[in-house]
Amino acid sequence: MFDSMTIVGVGLISGSFSLGLKDRGLVKNVIGVSRTPSSLKKALDLGLIDEALPLEEAVGKSDLIYVAIPVDVTIPMVQRIMDLVNDRQIVADAGSTKQALCESLAEHPMRRRFVATHPMWGTEYSGPEAAVRNAFAGRACVICGKEDSDPDAVEKIEHIYKLLGMNLVYMDAKNHDMHAAYISHISHITSFALANTVLEKEREEETIFDLAGGGFESTVRLAKSNPSMWLPIFMQNKEHVLDVLNEHIAQLRKFKSCLEKENYTYLQELMENANKIRKILK
Amino acid sequence: MFDSMTIVGVGLISGSFSLGLKDRGLVKNVIGVSRTPSSLKKALDLGLIDEALPLEEAVGKSDLIYVAIPVDVTIPMVQRIMDLVNDRQIVADAGSTKQALCESLAEHPMRRRFVATHPMWGTEYSGPEAAVRNAFAGRACVICGKEDSDPDAVEKIEHIYKLLGMNLVYMDAKNHDMHAAYISHISHITSFALANTVLEKEREEETIFDLAGGGFESTVRLAKSNPSMWLPIFMQNKEHVLDVLNEHIAQLRKFKSCLEKENYTYLQELMENANKIRKILK
Repeated sequence: MFDSMTIVGVGLISGSFSLGLKDRGLVKNVIGVSRTPSSLKKALDLGLIDEALPLEEAVGKSDLIYVAIPVDVTIPMVQRIMDLVNDRQIVADAGSTKQALCESLAEHPMRRRFVATHPMWGTEYSGPEAAVRNAFAGRACVICGKEDSDPDAVEKIEHIYKLLGMNLVYMDAKNHDMHAAYISHISHITSFALANTVLEKEREEETIFDLAGGGFESTVRLAKSNPSMWLPIFMQNKEHVLDVLNEHIAQLRKFKSCLEKENYTYLQELMENANKIRKILK
Repeated sequence: MFDSMTIVGVGLISGSFSLGLKDRGLVKNVIGVSRTPSSLKKALDLGLIDEALPLEEAVGKSDLIYVAIPVDVTIPMVQRIMDLVNDRQIVADAGSTKQALCESLAEHPMRRRFVATHPMWGTEYSGPEAAVRNAFAGRACVICGKEDSDPDAVEKIEHIYKLLGMNLVYMDAKNHDMHAAYISHISHITSFALANTVLEKEREEETIFDLAGGGFESTVRLAKSNPSMWLPIFMQNKEHVLDVLNEHIAQLRKFKSCLEKENYTYLQELMENANKIRKILK
């Protein structure tokens, strides 16, 4: 499908994306761009990329440029790339926020060569070593503002994500950021805060180590996530994250009040309501 | 090791315990006791038990009586059983709280035949169908107030849990309840509250279904847990749960305040602190 693709950032998402395309014969040559030479070396060693080049040279040789770096640096990076591409090349990003990025590109003359995407897959690990085969499958991929991109570009990107096994969902950038705050960003905040709670209360780290079971590990797993990736997400999506965080604190206060007042009927109802999530998640 | 064992309650924990002992040839005959005939039938069909009997008759025939029912009904049930046993029989429970139970038994003449245990394993499912083979392995099992039980009883129980692959940890009942609140009970509250948060904000259940990925599923998994099991745990462990819940709300407020005041340096620090959990959980 593509002779050559550039991935900007050589980490968990771009590395797994590259493996997915290579495994399916969708790309012949993958070029890595990164400001971190050691990451490029690892990506070469791991077979995530075939060569490492400076940005301008890489873009000049590529049919697709796929940007997967923290969302704050994504904005100037995509701008730079858009200044370099012609109307047969495609640019896409994988960021967890979309509104600020799409707004920053609104007036760009090459805007229609850009496709805004958010493959909702990830792990708590980062870097080239975190890349895995058969990532993305069974998860949602949001494509934002499809009508602002050229149909041929959208079709190719849709085709790739479908072959990776993703379920395509369409939203405008603003709605994406709101729903991402509800379904993904708040989970990360609660997990970071839960880790801090337990680290604060449980001064004996050995006791955490001894007792931690499946339940604790699953609720606290996301607290291992990389702050340099998540800080810019929270900054860009501040309003929506604050909105859902306020709701979450209010929900926790209901549990607190039930316990304080020994209102166990209502406590039971709160848990029964939460059980509705069983029907929604298979 | 045992000719006959009774499990009181035929569900996730007792059923998995029974399978573990049967698979290792540690017990010949398993008797089920439950007030729910349909659960007994399922347990028989699934091979979790060999026969179903009324409590008195079951206890009369058993070397070991293992109680795994909600913690509120555990107290009168263990009392009743202790009134029936002789000094060659062993009684153990698997409850998530220990202080109220141990206090209720303190003066019982047969107290030394009872071993208070908390195998820290579970899933968000319940009932006989939830029982699985090879449960418990790799997790902690807390044994409380070992010195209040006869050494031969403790040794047999320790032997069983070790053969199931559990790591034994020793604490008094009060400390157990405190640490269980920190490491296990708070995770359940945050998960129940997160489910309620998302159900409140995300009125379109279909959007949750479409977008929910691994991160959301893992933080919200425990919200599927059975309220009839968890309500009595929160009731019995109210003080410790409130203590850690207050800390958790305070930790979430720090995230909220950082976002409101755009204090991103401190927000980064909060996440970096949470990352310490990486070292503790392997």
